[in-house]
Amino acid sequence: MKVRKLIVSLSVVGMSSVAIADAQLRAEVAKLIQPIQPVVISADQKAKVELGKQLFFDPRLSMSGIISCNTCHNVMLGGVDNLKTSIGHKWQPGPVNAPTVFNSKLNLAQFWDGRAANLKEQAAGPIQAPVEMAMPHTLAVEVIQSIPGYVSQIQAIYGTDKVSLDHITDAIAAYEETLVTPNSPFDRWLRGDDKAMTAEQIAGLKIFYESGCVACHNGPNLGGNSYQKMGVVEPYRSSSPAEGRAAVTKKDEDRWFFKVPTLRNVELTYPYFHDGEASTLEEAVVLMGRLQLGRTFSDDEVKKIVAFLHALTGERPQDVLPLLPASGPNTPRPDPFK
Amino acid sequence: MKVRKLIVSLSVVGMSSVAIADAQLRAEVAKLIQPIQPVVISADQKAKVELGKQLFFDPRLSMSGIISCNTCHNVMLGGVDNLKTSIGHKWQPGPVNAPTVFNSKLNLAQFWDGRAANLKEQAAGPIQAPVEMAMPHTLAVEVIQSIPGYVSQIQAIYGTDKVSLDHITDAIAAYEETLVTPNSPFDRWLRGDDKAMTAEQIAGLKIFYESGCVACHNGPNLGGNSYQKMGVVEPYRSSSPAEGRAAVTKKDEDRWFFKVPTLRNVELTYPYFHDGEASTLEEAVVLMGRLQLGRTFSDDEVKKIVAFLHALTGERPQDVLPLLPASGPNTPRPDPFK
Repeated sequence: MKVRKLIVSLSVVGMSSVAIADAQLRAEVAKLIQPIQPVVISADQKAKVELGKQLFFDPRLSMSGIISCNTCHNVMLGGVDNLKTSIGHKWQPGPVNAPTVFNSKLNLAQFWDGRAANLKEQAAGPIQAPVEMAMPHTLAVEVIQSIPGYVSQIQAIYGTDKVSLDHITDAIAAYEETLVTPNSPFDRWLRGDDKAMTAEQIAGLKIFYESGCVACHNGPNLGGNSYQKMGVVEPYRSSSPAEGRAAVTKKDEDRWFFKVPTLRNVELTYPYFHDGEASTLEEAVVLMGRLQLGRTFSDDEVKKIVAFLHALTGERPQDVLPLLPASGPNTPRPDPFK
Repeated sequence: MKVRKLIVSLSVVGMSSVAIADAQLRAEVAKLIQPIQPVVISADQKAKVELGKQLFFDPRLSMSGIISCNTCHNVMLGGVDNLKTSIGHKWQPGPVNAPTVFNSKLNLAQFWDGRAANLKEQAAGPIQAPVEMAMPHTLAVEVIQSIPGYVSQIQAIYGTDKVSLDHITDAIAAYEETLVTPNSPFDRWLRGDDKAMTAEQIAGLKIFYESGCVACHNGPNLGGNSYQKMGVVEPYRSSSPAEGRAAVTKKDEDRWFFKVPTLRNVELTYPYFHDGEASTLEEAVVLMGRLQLGRTFSDDEVKKIVAFLHALTGERPQDVLPLLPASGPNTPRPDPFK
């Protein structure tokens, strides 16, 4: 009865049944997924964000002098390096696929296994990891302490001229918190712009919603807010040594549980999964359907879902290139072969 | 007589003898060294410069997917990587120290041995060099051809949707031509601002001028405009295999002749010489004095010359980070281990 009334009243303003179905889909989806909110950097955060940006791009934080945070989390691309697993110090391959830095503040924790509670904690990891930047924290601090242009900023922001790792990671995290990608076609559609997504993308969203993808890929980041087993219905075969959440909790039942990756900008963040084994979105969708939902998507369904996933590409920050402060006379020099 | 008259007339307006000496030094130096001219990008060059900037920062031009032009010619630093010799594909060390990209358009030719006539020709080299980006030109073209956001730009600029290496290098060169660093303290002093350099820096310039450094380091780039023998008075001992200009001319008399490096922003471009063997400015100045001029600078002279060299740091371009266009469905994937 209620539905009939709705149809009658809507037909008055000329809405087709497709539009009604779309409106209903939107209402349902909006309960589970929220648009990305743009960031407004407050006046008192500005200096810290600027410092963090400089540090994020500074290769002097690596032992080799050529790897910065941006090397693997490239904000000119999709906040990633588009490699199966990253290449670090001395060309060593990393253990897992580099997750995107975009919208990462929306995740419940950082790293695939959630071992860092937040971005600040995360930032300390790769600096020191031998297969990433390979820079002992003490040396990283010594380098920043030796660069007058950094010390003056730290003095202004933190009220001390004695640099600590905390300053470095706090500032990097402050910058990373600004790296959000609002106004994707999907977000604009979600906020009521009917034309923001194509009919094929809306059809893809419908399948995404009805087949259960949304059970894990929800929240503003379409993921990032829970740990789920990779291979629910069918076990996932991988040569990757990563065990997921169990590495943190030390509980056997957490083996192969990984933080659900965000689907924001997923067009730009290939290859996919913690091991980077799925090289295309089509491959990833087919495998997810089978392993997680026990469902074989038809070619047409895959095509539509992938079309929808392309609607998740938001606006990347248009930012000014940081000019890094000059090294001082005592700045420790990089050693690529150490 | 003439000098006396000048002193008399200047003393009327209150100039000290120091100021007179400075004015004379300025007049002499200005005959040999010119300030860096700021760049104004014309409306019809804008699109090409923007495309070139994207390509300059795009690691997809390398076989590994993580090395871009900016890796070794980092415009956030001094247009260099601050390594003795660069690290390239598979962590291979390059043969020579990476020269700065800043003001490089002012050089008579590119590379230490001048084997590229201009920036466009230069840009093709490192893309394909096995120890640098290791990307066959055909594959580089294929990658750019597969990225719709590049093809549309090339269509708009060059009137064709068939990408060629020429488009890639022409655009990169157009961007590099904008990378100048005007308004250094020295340039401001040269243009008449007496306060732009300290007394120590002016004293350093005087030694630089009078002892003959300026014989090679002249022109707007304080270098880059001639080939000179490394080790004029005393032979230079180096384990570097680089033979300099002879590699191009095949003439024995050109062995150890290298393009004189620019001294612009030299504070930021350590380490020094074609082999990167001098790690500080002090070291470089002492060695240059001995090898090229047969002169042993006193500690005080070295200090003053180095102070002057710090006055050569100009304003680096404040540019917007390029957002690189998304890969297409057929974009060849990187292979870091190939």
